[in-house]
Amino acid sequence: MEPGFYSRRQFLQQLSVNAGITIIGMEGISMFSTLEMAEAAEPAGIIESAPQALAAEVPRKLGIALVGLGQYAGGQLAPALKETEACYLAGIVTGSPNKARQWKRQYNIPDGNIYNYDNFDSIKDNPDIDIVYVVLPNALHAEYVVRAAKAGKHVICEKPMAITVEECDRMIAACKEAGKMLSIGYRLHFEPHNLQMKQLGQNKVYGEIKKIKAYNGMGDAQGWRLDKKLAGGGPLMDVGIYCVQGVRYTSGREPIAVTAKEGPKTDPVKFASVEQSLTWQMEFADGMIAECRTSYSEEMNLLRAEAERGWFELSPAYPYSGIRGKTSDGPMKLPQVNQQARQMDDFAIAVRSDRPTPVPGEMGRQDVKILQAIYKAMETGQRVEI
Amino acid sequence: MEPGFYSRRQFLQQLSVNAGITIIGMEGISMFSTLEMAEAAEPAGIIESAPQALAAEVPRKLGIALVGLGQYAGGQLAPALKETEACYLAGIVTGSPNKARQWKRQYNIPDGNIYNYDNFDSIKDNPDIDIVYVVLPNALHAEYVVRAAKAGKHVICEKPMAITVEECDRMIAACKEAGKMLSIGYRLHFEPHNLQMKQLGQNKVYGEIKKIKAYNGMGDAQGWRLDKKLAGGGPLMDVGIYCVQGVRYTSGREPIAVTAKEGPKTDPVKFASVEQSLTWQMEFADGMIAECRTSYSEEMNLLRAEAERGWFELSPAYPYSGIRGKTSDGPMKLPQVNQQARQMDDFAIAVRSDRPTPVPGEMGRQDVKILQAIYKAMETGQRVEI
Repeated sequence: MEPGFYSRRQFLQQLSVNAGITIIGMEGISMFSTLEMAEAAEPAGIIESAPQALAAEVPRKLGIALVGLGQYAGGQLAPALKETEACYLAGIVTGSPNKARQWKRQYNIPDGNIYNYDNFDSIKDNPDIDIVYVVLPNALHAEYVVRAAKAGKHVICEKPMAITVEECDRMIAACKEAGKMLSIGYRLHFEPHNLQMKQLGQNKVYGEIKKIKAYNGMGDAQGWRLDKKLAGGGPLMDVGIYCVQGVRYTSGREPIAVTAKEGPKTDPVKFASVEQSLTWQMEFADGMIAECRTSYSEEMNLLRAEAERGWFELSPAYPYSGIRGKTSDGPMKLPQVNQQARQMDDFAIAVRSDRPTPVPGEMGRQDVKILQAIYKAMETGQRVEI
Repeated sequence: MEPGFYSRRQFLQQLSVNAGITIIGMEGISMFSTLEMAEAAEPAGIIESAPQALAAEVPRKLGIALVGLGQYAGGQLAPALKETEACYLAGIVTGSPNKARQWKRQYNIPDGNIYNYDNFDSIKDNPDIDIVYVVLPNALHAEYVVRAAKAGKHVICEKPMAITVEECDRMIAACKEAGKMLSIGYRLHFEPHNLQMKQLGQNKVYGEIKKIKAYNGMGDAQGWRLDKKLAGGGPLMDVGIYCVQGVRYTSGREPIAVTAKEGPKTDPVKFASVEQSLTWQMEFADGMIAECRTSYSEEMNLLRAEAERGWFELSPAYPYSGIRGKTSDGPMKLPQVNQQARQMDDFAIAVRSDRPTPVPGEMGRQDVKILQAIYKAMETGQRVEI
């Protein structure tokens, strides 16, 4: 459909993934001819023995439709989809005719790929749309993921996956039944500094981790995020979830129990239906402890692991850009990337090559399970096993 | 048994791994009480609700017997076994009564745990020995791994695993039949800088890798390493194998074909039965190329990946200590570790908790397969598919 979107190497790689074909591309040949060989080596024979590349159709970029054109879709995902190599912004789903007109113009989206919430299910007949990305308020995730799966589309769902574990189960089941892949929008699994935390922690580079501190708070939450019916909770659901994730990928372990305590409400009107701030602790079978905090009225941004022979941390740890890290040996020197572009490209390549996503629905479900346990601990004042 | 070798945390961790028991240790409790809690939080409830640790037997360190007391066993493994936490030097197997006396004295090894190559098989009756570590010349690996497995012991085998793929198959089959674990002595899978290369490469932190350069050479090879019957080949078998491994773990991919060229012999007497140096190239399905060199008459030590958006390298890459790394963003800041201690502890923990080793026999077999293809390419002058 979109020939020419792929570099020759990407094409060859994808072809080999899809078809299991053994290919030596032309780049390989030209690389060989310019190898900085040892004085003793003689590359001529190599060039002569390399086969020619096969001719084949270039695979098209997969089309993504964004469902819900809020701040994250407009500010992050749509711009990222200009940098993706394996997928592109093919369609939108919105309840606002104004937004539809604006996005159509800004992103050159054909009328046939613009849906509202009433006619959304007819997306099943649209071959341009391979992947539906649900970016709606949390309480609507389950419905739209299930509808997308029933429409025969692969699905990305923003975090938190849903507001109950039962919803997560229905979402996973629906995608499984449809034979479609489901991933959660955990962009930090594609971010170099967070990957580094995972590497250092899971490989025990500084020995066993004894304690993790994970804090994530923002001072300016607005809109549906303050409405428990839509958000399923307060800052824990929206930003505290990064702490849960961070602890899980840094340690490679699962908490066995949680305790939690709600912070005071300095603005009881704004925070009428959700917590304003929350501190909680996660316990692990080996004695490791994670100390976590979240807030909608205080900026905090930290992921720090303290291990037997050193420490490693990100501060800030979770923003869209500008993440910085250091260890007890010195600063991390790692590149900044477009997290959302990497995340969506990885899912598109996973779909195309039929390999698992590293951020599947099951991962999202486990986070929701932990979040629910934290709320239960907060409400009861009791330690809650997971 | 050796009660007291384990810290309380290690004990709790191991217990939970072995028994699937949910435990909150005393450390957890004391950590909670000293948490730097948010002002709003109140830890008292947490302390009261934490259960007491269970009483249980502390697991003992696993006993390792070294088979073959050469330079690597004496210079690296035995000293490392003084730093291990999950295993210890319990026995030795040597053909030299002099060495037996010397090691017995130096490492306090009881007479009952000292074997020679004739009575080696009776090690099956020795409950002190859980793991046999084969550190013999390459051509003897297969025999002793098979005999160790038949004696009911878990096995670590030094690299290269063997000198033919058929031997590797027999070794894997023998351990499988005995229900024992087999790992290869790939210490760099436990070394922070090499783990970092793997992380940066496999997660595509700098995009797709286009080229890898892997050079490993030493100037002072001696003894059985120069005897093709015992070593199975020259520098490729002993040090070039690190290049093959480095390319594999940095890229996460498998070569599809190789070309190779032997270097000139400046000392044809010393290198009568093996190559003095060798350059080879490995081709990958996506067009990536690995350029490799090895030598017994030139010091070289490099692992460098050139990717779409940057590069990352170790120089030196493969020594027992002093590995240093940098990327196009700056120096890697990572700790130095005792590689062999980490490697052996990891295997002991894998055995105890019945989880797979990250460096299994199958990994060693694939390297041997590639090494054999490189020799075939060297001898025929042809490109050899793998």
